[in-house]
Amino acid sequence: MASSSSLSPPKVPKELYFINREKVLNSLRQHLTETSRPLHGFVLLQGGEEQTRYCTDHLELFRQESYFAYLFGVREPGFYGAIDIATGKSILFAPRLPPDYAVWLGKIKPLSYFQEKYMVNMVYYTDEIVGVLQGHYKEPGKPLLFLLHGLNTDSNNFSKPAQFEGMEKFETELNTLHPILSECRVFKSDHELALIQFANDISSEAHVEVMKKTRVGMKEYQMESMFLHHTYMYGGCRHCSYTCICATGENSAVLHYGHAAAPNDRTFEDGDMALLDMGAEYQFYGSDITCSFPVNGKFTSDQSLIYNAVLKAHNAVINAMKPGVCWVDMHKLAEKIILESLKKGGVMVGNVDEMMAARLGAVFMPHGLGHFLGIDTHDPGGYPKVYMIKLTADGF
Amino acid sequence: MASSSSLSPPKVPKELYFINREKVLNSLRQHLTETSRPLHGFVLLQGGEEQTRYCTDHLELFRQESYFAYLFGVREPGFYGAIDIATGKSILFAPRLPPDYAVWLGKIKPLSYFQEKYMVNMVYYTDEIVGVLQGHYKEPGKPLLFLLHGLNTDSNNFSKPAQFEGMEKFETELNTLHPILSECRVFKSDHELALIQFANDISSEAHVEVMKKTRVGMKEYQMESMFLHHTYMYGGCRHCSYTCICATGENSAVLHYGHAAAPNDRTFEDGDMALLDMGAEYQFYGSDITCSFPVNGKFTSDQSLIYNAVLKAHNAVINAMKPGVCWVDMHKLAEKIILESLKKGGVMVGNVDEMMAARLGAVFMPHGLGHFLGIDTHDPGGYPKVYMIKLTADGF
Repeated sequence: MASSSSLSPPKVPKELYFINREKVLNSLRQHLTETSRPLHGFVLLQGGEEQTRYCTDHLELFRQESYFAYLFGVREPGFYGAIDIATGKSILFAPRLPPDYAVWLGKIKPLSYFQEKYMVNMVYYTDEIVGVLQGHYKEPGKPLLFLLHGLNTDSNNFSKPAQFEGMEKFETELNTLHPILSECRVFKSDHELALIQFANDISSEAHVEVMKKTRVGMKEYQMESMFLHHTYMYGGCRHCSYTCICATGENSAVLHYGHAAAPNDRTFEDGDMALLDMGAEYQFYGSDITCSFPVNGKFTSDQSLIYNAVLKAHNAVINAMKPGVCWVDMHKLAEKIILESLKKGGVMVGNVDEMMAARLGAVFMPHGLGHFLGIDTHDPGGYPKVYMIKLTADGF
Repeated sequence: MASSSSLSPPKVPKELYFINREKVLNSLRQHLTETSRPLHGFVLLQGGEEQTRYCTDHLELFRQESYFAYLFGVREPGFYGAIDIATGKSILFAPRLPPDYAVWLGKIKPLSYFQEKYMVNMVYYTDEIVGVLQGHYKEPGKPLLFLLHGLNTDSNNFSKPAQFEGMEKFETELNTLHPILSECRVFKSDHELALIQFANDISSEAHVEVMKKTRVGMKEYQMESMFLHHTYMYGGCRHCSYTCICATGENSAVLHYGHAAAPNDRTFEDGDMALLDMGAEYQFYGSDITCSFPVNGKFTSDQSLIYNAVLKAHNAVINAMKPGVCWVDMHKLAEKIILESLKKGGVMVGNVDEMMAARLGAVFMPHGLGHFLGIDTHDPGGYPKVYMIKLTADGF
């Protein structure tokens, strides 16, 4: 084969999800203690279900819900997961599969398989949730369930709290879990960072491969195909963090090009710039990488001017970043350097501070400087209230 | 690049959807005439919507609903489509996009773009449905809408009738359209056959490529990656007809291996058979191809026995098939030849007619002989009532 890779997909350490659960458990216990509430009840999450396409039997490739993936790492559909706040014990509930599943969909795994694989204390069937949770609850009255309910500030959608038959036998609490779990997801463990690093390494390598193989006269989607192939073939990445954006020519000015209504289908020409925004997902953890280059391999002076303006801004932000630095200041730094470069190159005329005050930079960079990255491409926790207020106050 | 292709993706003839609409219109008019009902009202279908993943802003790659794709070919989300039964005129309703769509998602296309592209008579915005349909209705009383409502016999799900604000201003009829539209989809036009042929040609070529590049010690998903790459890179196939099944060793006995809970992740060994069931989708039209081969390139005598039994059955059915032949008889023919081969090879002992009577063949072939193929992998119309009755009566 022409291509190859210097990388190989790392194993996922089993304790990754154990560590995540411990973190959430400790954080929740601390919060309950601080608010003078008792340390009992269960964290209960419902995993994702397989979806068919419209009315057909076409099954979409299942990808676990991200909060569930964070706590339990389960790649199979139809699960529930619980953490006993009093004892710290973790429990998975697996769907009870019919016997003919073995013929059509594969070996029916014993519960011990999931216990071992996801390093939980116990595994039962989903039809046992009520009895198991009641049995483990040592307090008087209905057992208390902390369910996931909260706003995703990127999508404006709400997460869906777990639902199951017999819920009326429990007390439920919707306000506590979501902010604690989201905050825990912000700070990555070393195990998580290693997976994110691999997703980025294999994606970076794939970008370079694509760049090498790009030829004038290709279709944009061929760059997508080469990227997907490299990250799956050599990185085991079956999913992408987001739909590949392979924009050339004026399409490069469209931030989220590449979707079904603009499906990377242009034939690109000599002299075009390509802007490729693609990232693979490895074992739930994602990457998000954009790069741009001239498809014929040679920058024109105009292309070089813009490319270097962005590169300079990028490097300045990387150099200035350290704990305690304000994100908004980094955004302003990037805008300022871009405007200075554009002025120097004769694209803009006038005073850069005045341009900054008029938010002229937003014409060229209408998006934010970045976002959190993890199990979601736009990982939660990126927009705490205080940051939103500061952004608004600064006119950003 | 090491690979290449002798094929190139064909253009989709615009009149494809026009022909489909004419067929449905004529069939519906004929049915209304035969049942002494007036020839007016509208066929109204709602296209698919983009879906986000759980609560996040991760957008799944949109794929149009199949009935809508059949009649209108629209690849963009959020549309409605109508056919005026009295005049035969076709109308598309496009979503009205906000101005900042142009910055984030691409050029906002004028309505004339969709009129030209999908060869319809008129295009309006979705917020104009009520007024437009009322305006075109020349009869007294509420306009009549024929909506899509019916059982998909493969999934046991029901198709979703169109819904929009202001529906109470119309009469709706749910029983007529679905069987007519499904029946029309069974008989493919030459344009449709050409697309299905291409999807099959590029998929066949990709299967051969995969076979050539397979090496002992690879992971099953690497065969998937090679297939996907070939069909996308050289065939422009962004979607597959179904999740790739790349089974080796004992996984080959699992019919629908390859999904998230059994994700093509085995490392295969010298002496294994591979069973690859993969098909690309081209411009909504699908393919479905299975082949099996020894991963080291050489059959053992056992492997050869099974392979040749299936090949012989396959060839016998192909030779026997012609208009008027009963599908169930073809299934029996295949089973009989396989059982005869197994007996000859010493795998089975006894009388083949008795094995047939005892349905022993179903142990080795628990699935049907085939299914219809088109915009869905399991295309509608495959299980008419009379066939189901015959199957049951014959013990199949």
